[in-house]
Amino acid sequence: MLHKPRSIDVTQVSEWHDGALRRFEDYLVAEEPMEIRIGDTPLSVTMRTPGHDFELALGFLFTEGLISGRDQVASIEQGTAGREEASGNIVVVKLAGAEFERERMQCNFFTASSCGICGKASIDAVRVRGIRPPESALRLDPDVLCSLPDKLRSSQTIFGRTGGLHAAGLFTTAGELVVLREDVGRHNAVDKIIGWALNEGGVPLSDCVLMVSGRGGFEIIQKALVARIPLVASVSAPSSLAVRTARELGMTLVGFLRGRRFLIYSGEERLQLAREAAPVG
Amino acid sequence: MLHKPRSIDVTQVSEWHDGALRRFEDYLVAEEPMEIRIGDTPLSVTMRTPGHDFELALGFLFTEGLISGRDQVASIEQGTAGREEASGNIVVVKLAGAEFERERMQCNFFTASSCGICGKASIDAVRVRGIRPPESALRLDPDVLCSLPDKLRSSQTIFGRTGGLHAAGLFTTAGELVVLREDVGRHNAVDKIIGWALNEGGVPLSDCVLMVSGRGGFEIIQKALVARIPLVASVSAPSSLAVRTARELGMTLVGFLRGRRFLIYSGEERLQLAREAAPVG
Repeated sequence: MLHKPRSIDVTQVSEWHDGALRRFEDYLVAEEPMEIRIGDTPLSVTMRTPGHDFELALGFLFTEGLISGRDQVASIEQGTAGREEASGNIVVVKLAGAEFERERMQCNFFTASSCGICGKASIDAVRVRGIRPPESALRLDPDVLCSLPDKLRSSQTIFGRTGGLHAAGLFTTAGELVVLREDVGRHNAVDKIIGWALNEGGVPLSDCVLMVSGRGGFEIIQKALVARIPLVASVSAPSSLAVRTARELGMTLVGFLRGRRFLIYSGEERLQLAREAAPVG
Repeated sequence: MLHKPRSIDVTQVSEWHDGALRRFEDYLVAEEPMEIRIGDTPLSVTMRTPGHDFELALGFLFTEGLISGRDQVASIEQGTAGREEASGNIVVVKLAGAEFERERMQCNFFTASSCGICGKASIDAVRVRGIRPPESALRLDPDVLCSLPDKLRSSQTIFGRTGGLHAAGLFTTAGELVVLREDVGRHNAVDKIIGWALNEGGVPLSDCVLMVSGRGGFEIIQKALVARIPLVASVSAPSSLAVRTARELGMTLVGFLRGRRFLIYSGEERLQLAREAAPVG
């Protein structure tokens, strides 16, 4: 039987509380390296929380521009390694049709992960990969938007026990949670969601909203754009490059979504905002 | 004059607050790619918050095992690029003595960043690089430990304006802040601190405590170990692999450091803990 790493570990900890010491067992979010292989060729290694590994591999290949759809993948399976513990951390992807062009892949991969060496070049690199603005008619009610953080948090099963990881949730415009994934890496949680959608035949995700815990950086915006998600919301601040990218590529970007308040950085037209009070005539 | 990217951007945002809409200018934390070159050879590209770039490059080379000390670096300077905006995002490092061994570097780099494909192998990879347990006589008073989060937060100048990034702070055992760095990437903040210490001749950092905002993952522990920091504390949860690494390599790891409470995952002997109440005789 193949080794299957767990998402949660249990360990002995000591708690210091105002001078008093107490020992007990506590949960830890698991972090393990995962290697993606294309056939026999190692492609990348990323630190991730075990679970939904095939979705992570699929999503990663897609958002980094190495495949353009699920049909380019013939099979995905768990790899084997000399050390039993390692087997659960290897995902082997076999591509359909043409054999693996290592050179082209490395080139794409480099473009995708390095993104040039200035903000402008980073945005250009996204464009060069043929990522167009999400031409989406999606409209979202601010009340629905405000309901998403609570829904995300209450569905985070691993976080609830470990307090230690990021979440990404895909929602409908009615505010229904479609799928949620958790990971020590914020980008991995997004890749797992997009990998799930690829399996379900649901990409492009033009009618969905992506909500992420924590900050909204360039990497998240880039991955969401590849899946054509028109609206991304985060609990905390976006970065300068995330905002520039969202603006130039026509994505709606919301930050600091807390309680009955949020900031809109880009694409206001997709939010059904109250009109500003008209002067009394 | 060379282009110098800023750490903070200003942008127009819209705030929705319970139905009311308001527009104003707000600060954003800057995120830009930075390329490290060894002579003419590009080594890596990372997304970072501009500022303290030379320290970031130095710290990165050191914690990833590409240099073993400051004396191996002959010079560090800003690079030039066709596009003016890009110049501020290139750091050129010239090594002292022997010419650049590309192959050896790539090999090291791969080991460092990929860390094998299981937790055990990841820890072994740290060991293979000759990283020994920090044999430090450091002892820390829990009261001092509890004072660190407030000191870290109140010194975060960029966070105060943007609410959007990670911090790492190096402290003495008396609780004095030695140096603080902020970055969109938690690992970059740590590399900037270690790069600063290399410049100051202060590595190994056996008598210092590292405090990071957010979580404590494997990467942070690994980097701290290279600089021989004996105690790492974080505001939030560590991962399973961070705990295993800290235990196997003899580092003190504290998490959930909030108010007058914290959890100890490893290396309790470095904390001057109250004795558990002895039974009344």
